[in-house]
Amino acid sequence: MQRRDRGRLIVISGPSGTGKGTVISRLMELRDDLCISVSLTTRPPRPGEVDGKDYFFVTREEFSQKVEAGLLLEHAEFVGNCYGTPREFVEQKLDGGVSVILEIDVQGAEQVAASCPDSVSVFILPPSGTELERRLRGRHTDSEEKIRSRLLEAKRECAEAARYGYIVVNDSATAAAREIDAIITAEKCKSAYRINLVTEVLIS
Amino acid sequence: MQRRDRGRLIVISGPSGTGKGTVISRLMELRDDLCISVSLTTRPPRPGEVDGKDYFFVTREEFSQKVEAGLLLEHAEFVGNCYGTPREFVEQKLDGGVSVILEIDVQGAEQVAASCPDSVSVFILPPSGTELERRLRGRHTDSEEKIRSRLLEAKRECAEAARYGYIVVNDSATAAAREIDAIITAEKCKSAYRINLVTEVLIS
Repeated sequence: MQRRDRGRLIVISGPSGTGKGTVISRLMELRDDLCISVSLTTRPPRPGEVDGKDYFFVTREEFSQKVEAGLLLEHAEFVGNCYGTPREFVEQKLDGGVSVILEIDVQGAEQVAASCPDSVSVFILPPSGTELERRLRGRHTDSEEKIRSRLLEAKRECAEAARYGYIVVNDSATAAAREIDAIITAEKCKSAYRINLVTEVLIS
Repeated sequence: MQRRDRGRLIVISGPSGTGKGTVISRLMELRDDLCISVSLTTRPPRPGEVDGKDYFFVTREEFSQKVEAGLLLEHAEFVGNCYGTPREFVEQKLDGGVSVILEIDVQGAEQVAASCPDSVSVFILPPSGTELERRLRGRHTDSEEKIRSRLLEAKRECAEAARYGYIVVNDSATAAAREIDAIITAEKCKSAYRINLVTEVLIS
């Protein structure tokens, strides 16, 4: 097929311990029309990090200018550093037929939904609360209190899942990746994005 | 996975000459959680036709009663016989986790959208007007006038594609079937249908 559908922006969230990273890695293996969003940051590069690949490294002043000019789809500050998603990078990929994966927290997802209404949002849910707890315990050697607080935070995030367009359960990373793969394909088939094909049939 | 999502009603339309039948056959090979809707009809059975498999055969009085009781998702009359889609058959399949394919014309699809708001609608588009004409000519030995009128009717139907949720282009029956397969998977992942999974995580 010569025609190439425009890419879609896919926002993926899920609490810590849900295995988002593994699901996204599997997903990247399934499609060749997909890339991961590169963030803008004011954090200095670490050894080996490449500008434009790992992050776009900017000064705090450049960052503020971009925020004010509306050039970021979302932005936030973590431990003294600013992070954001550059609209231009995303738009260029979408125009070229490449879908963009944006792994982001619930607050960031809300900002993207507002600044980019035709983005697609997917929440990755752990298979159960028990399994979530097992994964959070397995990863850390923290105090019981800290684990409890982390579990509570993760469950609070899960309660936001209804605000996403799609929910995928990570009981198998491969199965979850296949579902997101299907979601991307389906979203490209939505009639709003294919009206031009109707016109082609009518005039040819 | 033990959990089984509820099935979805998939309405498929497309003009004569678009190759709907082949696409649906390929689709049936791709999934084992799919069946084709069995229509109710007042037409007498032809030799070899089995009640409940090819059609549900009923009298005109029985048909009218079902229409009045709101037991049909849609109905229409063709050359003196009534045809309709029984709501009960569809609901039973969906409850059992089986999605139901309903191949139907544009008018029928409108009725189903009204009587079953969570149905999923897919329009199958020919790759081009030229190809549509080639397929319509290839199938018939009709007069030029008749072919022209049939082509015009098919293009009129294509113009309705924007009213469907999804548009799939049949330039390859296998590729088109794969897209509908992905649409069914994605529709089952919609958060509205998976809220119960969120509750499970929160309380377990």
